[in-house]
Amino acid sequence: MSFLNNTKIAVIGGGSWATALIKILCEQPYVQIRWWLRNQDDINHIRKFHHNPSYLSDVNLSPKKIKVFEKTTDAVKGADYIILAVPAAFVQESLQDLTEKHLKGKRIVSAIKGMIPDQNILITDWISEKYGIGLNETCVIAGPCHAEEVALEKQSYLTIGSAECPAAEDFAKLMTCRYVTAHALDDLYGVEYFAVMKNIIALACGITHGLGYGDNFQAVMVSNAMQEIGRFVTALDPRTRDISSSAYLGDLLVTAYSQFSRNRLFGNMIGRGYSVKAAQLEMKMIAEGFYATKSIMEMNKSFNVNIPITTAVYNILYEEQAPAHVMEELKKLLK
Amino acid sequence: MSFLNNTKIAVIGGGSWATALIKILCEQPYVQIRWWLRNQDDINHIRKFHHNPSYLSDVNLSPKKIKVFEKTTDAVKGADYIILAVPAAFVQESLQDLTEKHLKGKRIVSAIKGMIPDQNILITDWISEKYGIGLNETCVIAGPCHAEEVALEKQSYLTIGSAECPAAEDFAKLMTCRYVTAHALDDLYGVEYFAVMKNIIALACGITHGLGYGDNFQAVMVSNAMQEIGRFVTALDPRTRDISSSAYLGDLLVTAYSQFSRNRLFGNMIGRGYSVKAAQLEMKMIAEGFYATKSIMEMNKSFNVNIPITTAVYNILYEEQAPAHVMEELKKLLK
Repeated sequence: MSFLNNTKIAVIGGGSWATALIKILCEQPYVQIRWWLRNQDDINHIRKFHHNPSYLSDVNLSPKKIKVFEKTTDAVKGADYIILAVPAAFVQESLQDLTEKHLKGKRIVSAIKGMIPDQNILITDWISEKYGIGLNETCVIAGPCHAEEVALEKQSYLTIGSAECPAAEDFAKLMTCRYVTAHALDDLYGVEYFAVMKNIIALACGITHGLGYGDNFQAVMVSNAMQEIGRFVTALDPRTRDISSSAYLGDLLVTAYSQFSRNRLFGNMIGRGYSVKAAQLEMKMIAEGFYATKSIMEMNKSFNVNIPITTAVYNILYEEQAPAHVMEELKKLLK
Repeated sequence: MSFLNNTKIAVIGGGSWATALIKILCEQPYVQIRWWLRNQDDINHIRKFHHNPSYLSDVNLSPKKIKVFEKTTDAVKGADYIILAVPAAFVQESLQDLTEKHLKGKRIVSAIKGMIPDQNILITDWISEKYGIGLNETCVIAGPCHAEEVALEKQSYLTIGSAECPAAEDFAKLMTCRYVTAHALDDLYGVEYFAVMKNIIALACGITHGLGYGDNFQAVMVSNAMQEIGRFVTALDPRTRDISSSAYLGDLLVTAYSQFSRNRLFGNMIGRGYSVKAAQLEMKMIAEGFYATKSIMEMNKSFNVNIPITTAVYNILYEEQAPAHVMEELKKLLK
């Protein structure tokens, strides 16, 4: 496929998801990766040993295909695509050196499953507003996909969500390899909001599990969550969606049920009695759901959708209500 | 609630699900259980020690509320409800002594998640045909609910599916207690077919897990399965269903993801290389999905619905095709 030849892709972010995406992209014969990481020790290690010392450290990062940069302005030079893969809370800081000029003519792909804190807007909307990039030049990468299983080359599927992005189909081809099948889906907001809200549900699953609730309860909570997210997304962007498809339901399942989910782990600590502060200190990774909970609750002031699970998580994380009591009330609302 | 007073309920079957249902019913102050079990040793043990020696043996079975019978004809005498809780493969044999006369005026509740083998019909349809009982006098108990978690008194939810059964609302009240919330749902076929087909999907999840596929793949398979079951049920009984609700999605999740699922365990053995015979010998419990797979495939000869996951399981279990090869082909059909 000639259009793929010498495709240059800038990747912004040094975590496990960024590392997994680079591994997938490097399966293409002619792709060149221009990788920006914040941590100088990690940069030095990758240059010297061709492995990321902090995340998915088994993955081989060939210097033939990957160049590592200290500055985002250098990383994005000449790139066809720019993949954003930093936690939502750090995206503004990470991109601070980039101006409209740097991003012009490039396709922006968000691999971030969160919202800009305080502003309560999606990453693609923020990029579009700040850099004057049309929504038709952006797309999002959604699961269901844990980075850890990509590292193990276990068969995975990705969804490239876009509004009407001509790049989404091309980008789906770039992300397809022996162990990954990617497909484009024409629903930017649906895919992005499901990706954001699933993390809140994973927190809720973790909290209840930490409190001693079992598989029966989790199955009911996840079913109710599907209806809750469906209602919220429909209020924001009404259209017909088959929310049973893997871009929506699958993405929720992989997060709510997997041992690899940091949101579930964070929730579990809260359920077992850790304070929010203590749980945050204990965890090395950011639990995106923590910020997403606040954003969605604030957005919902305008929409007034019935979102009892998100509300319960908010009351526990931000209103200091006792998890056991909040879940005791929530369980009466589920069926 | 006076209508509950001295409600007599016959329970046919001695397995873990029957034992869990009895535990729930005994939470009501005035319910009397008339319990038939096939195994004479179990009957003797329960009479003497008030515990089921074979299943959920922690559960206390109070003789004040529970009478145990050797004959089904004795057990059903004077009963208001008859709960059927034997494996589908044994239902004909278990009920052989009962005639129309014995069942007349009684409400029949199927707790069986399978179909009559060879005849490929649902339990409620079979009861209705054989005993001349209208579909409006039968209902089904569906999950999402593992018996093991009921024994532990973990919060669980049940769905009582019915066509237009006036008894379903009453029966839902009987099944509601401190740790169980039951609700009635006006969709007999939808609930019953989901309950049957989810076991096939759990087999598929077990097989792929046994082959080494991970959480990413399972999330995609379960999402595709929701669409597959949805298509099949719609072909049989077209109507609008919110298949994200817990009676459908929740029931699938609890079976596909839980460590307690015998179907998943059976599938896992197949995936790890056991023959069907060897896996059946090794397992003490019946995996309903094994029979359901054949019934659904045979029914589908008339309906021609696209059911790739069920077809894959059928090809492995009945056509002796290699699991690794079949799943390699299936994964190309999923997205």
